[in-house]
Amino acid sequence: MFESAELGHRIAKADYQGIVPELRKSLLDVQFDVQQNSPLRIIVVIAGVEGGGKGSTVNLLNAWMDPRLIETHAFDQSLSVSLKEPAFHRYWQCMPPRGRLAIFMGAWYSDLIEAHVSGKLRKGDFDRKIQAIINFESMLTHESTLILKYWLHLSHAEQKKRLNSLAADPDMSWRVTEAGWHQLKHYETYRSTAEHCLRLSSTGENPWVIVEGVDERYRNLTIGQHLHDRIKEAMVRPLDNKRIQAPPLLSPIDHRSILDTLHLDNELSRQDYQKQLGILQGRLHNLLRSEEFKKNHALITVFEGNDAAGKGGSIRRITQALDARTYRVVPIAAPTPEEKLRPYLWRFWKNLPDAGHLTIFDRSWYGRVLVERVEGFCSTADWMRAYDEINQFEHQLAESGIIILKFWLAISADEQLKRFQEREQTGFKRFKITDEDWRNRNKWDAYAEAVNDMVDRTSTQTAPWILVEANNKYYARIKVLSALCDHIEKQLK
Amino acid sequence: MFESAELGHRIAKADYQGIVPELRKSLLDVQFDVQQNSPLRIIVVIAGVEGGGKGSTVNLLNAWMDPRLIETHAFDQSLSVSLKEPAFHRYWQCMPPRGRLAIFMGAWYSDLIEAHVSGKLRKGDFDRKIQAIINFESMLTHESTLILKYWLHLSHAEQKKRLNSLAADPDMSWRVTEAGWHQLKHYETYRSTAEHCLRLSSTGENPWVIVEGVDERYRNLTIGQHLHDRIKEAMVRPLDNKRIQAPPLLSPIDHRSILDTLHLDNELSRQDYQKQLGILQGRLHNLLRSEEFKKNHALITVFEGNDAAGKGGSIRRITQALDARTYRVVPIAAPTPEEKLRPYLWRFWKNLPDAGHLTIFDRSWYGRVLVERVEGFCSTADWMRAYDEINQFEHQLAESGIIILKFWLAISADEQLKRFQEREQTGFKRFKITDEDWRNRNKWDAYAEAVNDMVDRTSTQTAPWILVEANNKYYARIKVLSALCDHIEKQLK
Repeated sequence: MFESAELGHRIAKADYQGIVPELRKSLLDVQFDVQQNSPLRIIVVIAGVEGGGKGSTVNLLNAWMDPRLIETHAFDQSLSVSLKEPAFHRYWQCMPPRGRLAIFMGAWYSDLIEAHVSGKLRKGDFDRKIQAIINFESMLTHESTLILKYWLHLSHAEQKKRLNSLAADPDMSWRVTEAGWHQLKHYETYRSTAEHCLRLSSTGENPWVIVEGVDERYRNLTIGQHLHDRIKEAMVRPLDNKRIQAPPLLSPIDHRSILDTLHLDNELSRQDYQKQLGILQGRLHNLLRSEEFKKNHALITVFEGNDAAGKGGSIRRITQALDARTYRVVPIAAPTPEEKLRPYLWRFWKNLPDAGHLTIFDRSWYGRVLVERVEGFCSTADWMRAYDEINQFEHQLAESGIIILKFWLAISADEQLKRFQEREQTGFKRFKITDEDWRNRNKWDAYAEAVNDMVDRTSTQTAPWILVEANNKYYARIKVLSALCDHIEKQLK
Repeated sequence: MFESAELGHRIAKADYQGIVPELRKSLLDVQFDVQQNSPLRIIVVIAGVEGGGKGSTVNLLNAWMDPRLIETHAFDQSLSVSLKEPAFHRYWQCMPPRGRLAIFMGAWYSDLIEAHVSGKLRKGDFDRKIQAIINFESMLTHESTLILKYWLHLSHAEQKKRLNSLAADPDMSWRVTEAGWHQLKHYETYRSTAEHCLRLSSTGENPWVIVEGVDERYRNLTIGQHLHDRIKEAMVRPLDNKRIQAPPLLSPIDHRSILDTLHLDNELSRQDYQKQLGILQGRLHNLLRSEEFKKNHALITVFEGNDAAGKGGSIRRITQALDARTYRVVPIAAPTPEEKLRPYLWRFWKNLPDAGHLTIFDRSWYGRVLVERVEGFCSTADWMRAYDEINQFEHQLAESGIIILKFWLAISADEQLKRFQEREQTGFKRFKITDEDWRNRNKWDAYAEAVNDMVDRTSTQTAPWILVEANNKYYARIKVLSALCDHIEKQLK
C-alpha cells in the first residue's frame, strides 16, 4: 500500500518555482469560486506518520490559499476528551458550512490508530469503528461534502532521519514529541495498523491519497495540484446525492399500517389519571436523581405525532416532575439559514444533553423521513439513506450512555378535526393552528405510510418507538410517563 | 431594603386558586406574543437566599408557561469555571435570541456575592464588578433585552425553619446543600453583602424586585403577575434605545483628522522588506511559542482600514509565521440572521481565542462606529454608547490575559483608486471589488471623521490602535509585524 510512497520522489527547485505561482493563483481562484457559488463544503483530512510534514502541509495550504476562508482544526494531538463523548461529536462541532473549506488534522483517524496500537482497542472494535467512519463519510458525501484524505508517509529510514534532523535544529526541535519517538520505535506496528485502517477506509467515494513525505517540494506540489483538481471537478459535477437508486419500499397491498392496530380510544378517567400522574412523576423524579443516572447517563426523549395529538401537554407532564436546571425542551421547526448550510443532523448534535441531564425534542431528526419525505423536500435517495444514518446516530449516542426513548402520539382523523376546530376558537391556542396543519391533514395516508416505515426501520432495542394512543389525553400522558420510567429503569440496571 | 419582604405576606388557598387559571392563560398569551412578534428578548434573573424558593420558582415558570419557549441556565451553583474566563463570557454563550425568554438562575450575582462573603474579593473589587454589571445590563437593555430581576428573601428565622424542614423530608433533603447551612450560619454577612450589591445594582432601568420567599402562593403570584405585566408593558412600549440624547461629537472646524498626520507614502525597498520580514516573523513565532504566552495569554488582532488597504496581505504575513493549529482568521461581513437576533457583540464573544492561541479579526466590532455610523445602520445613540461598550469589552478580555492590538491601515484616495482599477483587471482578485466599495469611496470624509473619533475614544493602553501608513505595502506589513512583536513583548514582561 505504501510502496509507491517510498520511491524517493523529488522535484527540482527550478521546476518547483516554475509551477508554484500558477498553481497558487488557480487554488485561490477555485477557493473563491467555492465561496461564491457554494454548492459544497470541503473537508481536507491531513494525517500520516510523525515527521511526514502534516504541520507544514497545513501551514502551506493556509499560505497558498486565503486563510480567511479556511478553518483549521487539530484532532491529531490526543486531547483530554471525555471517554464518554459520543463518537463523532467533536467533528460535528467543527462542521464547516457550505462554501467553506476546513482542514481536519488527524480527523477521525489518528486517535483511532493510536488507540489500536496502544492496545486500548481490540481488533474487532477497531474494524467496527472503521466501518462507522465509512458510514459517516458516506453520509457527509451525500450531504454535499467533498472529503479529501491525504496520508503523509515516510519509510522507517526516512522517519528516523527526519526526526533526528528536526531534533538537532533548536528552532524545530519542539516539533518532535514523545509520540514521535514512540512511533519510530514501533514503526512496523504503526505501519501495519495504518495500512489496515487505510485499506478498509479507502472507498470508491472517499479514497485515500498517499503522499511520500520526504521531499517538501514534491509533497507540496502533489497535494496542491490534487486538491485543486478535485475541487474544480466537484464544482463542475457536484456530488450527486441522487446516485443511490433507492428501490421503492414495500407498500402493502391492503394499505394496513401499524397505526391501524392501535386502539386510539383507550380511556382513562380523570380520577385515575391524577392518582397515577403523581406516582409516575415521583418515580421519574427519583430515577433521574439517582447517582447512577447522574454520573453515567443522560436522557433524550423524542416526541413526534399527528398535529394536535398533544405533544406539548405530554412534555409538560414530564417537565413538571423535574428540576428546571436538568432539562431542556428543544422545539424543532424549519431549519435556520445557518442550519441549512450544514448536514441535516448537525442541529441535533448541537443539542445533546450533558451527563445527568435530559433533552426533550419536540419533533426531531425524524422530520427527514416524515415531513421531508411526504412533502418532497428531499429526494427519495435522501430519506432512504436517512434510516441508516439515524440508526447510527442513535447508536453512537447510546454507546456514550445516553438513554433514548421515542414517542409517536396518534389520534384519529375525527379527533384531530375536533381539536383543530377547538383551537381556532380558543384565545391563546389560536397561534397553534396554521394553514400548514390543514394541508398536512389532507395527506393523512401518506403520513401513515411514512410512520409505518419509520417505526419498522428505526425502532431498536436501544432506542425504541412507543406508539401512544392519544384520543384520550389522560391515557396518553400516563402511557408516556409510564413507558419512560420503565425504559429508564431497564437501562439503569 | 428587605423590610417589606419580612412582613409575613400570605395568600389564602381559595384566593390563589381563583386567580391562577386566568394568570396562567395571560402568561401563555404574552409568551406567544413575544415569540410571534419578537421585538425583544427577555432575561429573568432568579436569585436570592438559600431556601427562598429559587428552584421552585423556576420550575413554576416552566410549568405555567410553555417550556418549549424557555431556556433555563443555572449559574448559581459555583462551577469549576476557569478563573481566567473573561467576565460575562458565560452569559454571552447563553444569550437568547429575540423572541425568547431565558431564565438565568443566580446570573452574574450569586457568584459575586459568594466571592465577597468568602473573602476572595475585596471591597474595592466588589464595587468595581458591580459597576461592570450595571454597564453590562444597560448595554443589554439598549440591545432590546428586557431584564427582570427577582430576589427571593427570607429572614434569619424563616431561613432556619425552611432549611430544617427541607432537611427533615427525605424527598427534599437533597435540596439543602453545604452552601445552604453555610449561609444560615453567616446570615448577617450574607444579608449585608446582598443588600449592598442589590442597592448598587438596582438602577432605574433595571431595578430589583424583592419578594418574600416564605409563602409559596404569595411568591408565585407576585412573580407571575409582575412578570406578566412587565412583559406586556414592554411589548406595547418597546425599550427605547434612542432615549440617550447623544450630544454631537466635536467636529473640528478645520476638518483636520488624525489621519492627516500620517505620511502615507513612507517607503521600504523590496530588499529591506524581505530581510526584515524573515526576522520579524521569527520573532513573532518565538513570542507565541513562549511558555508564558502559551500558559497565561492569548492574542487578538483587529484589522480595519480603507478598502483595498492591504489587510489580507498583512494578515497573511502574520499567519505565515505561525503553526496553523494556533490561529484562526475570522472575516467579519454583514451579520447572519442568527447573529442579528443577538446583541451586536455576541458574534465576537463566540470567537475568542483559547490560551496560547490567536484570533485575527478581519474587520471587527468597530463596524458599529464605522460603517454602521456612516451608513446610518444604527442610531446616533447606538454608536455613541458603543465606544464605552467596546472599551469595556476589551477591558474584560485584557483582564483575562488576552493581548489585544488593533491596526488601521490607511491609504490615500489616489492609491485606492489605482488599486480598485488594478483589481478589476486581475482575474482572481475581481471578486474583491464590488459596487459597495465604490459607494464607500464616495463617503471618504465621513469615514475619516469616524476613524478619528474611533481612535480618540478607543485607543487605550491595553488595547491600542496602531495607524499604519499603507500606500507602500512593504512598509505597512513590516510596521504591522514590528508593532505586534513590540506590543506582545511588553505585555509578556
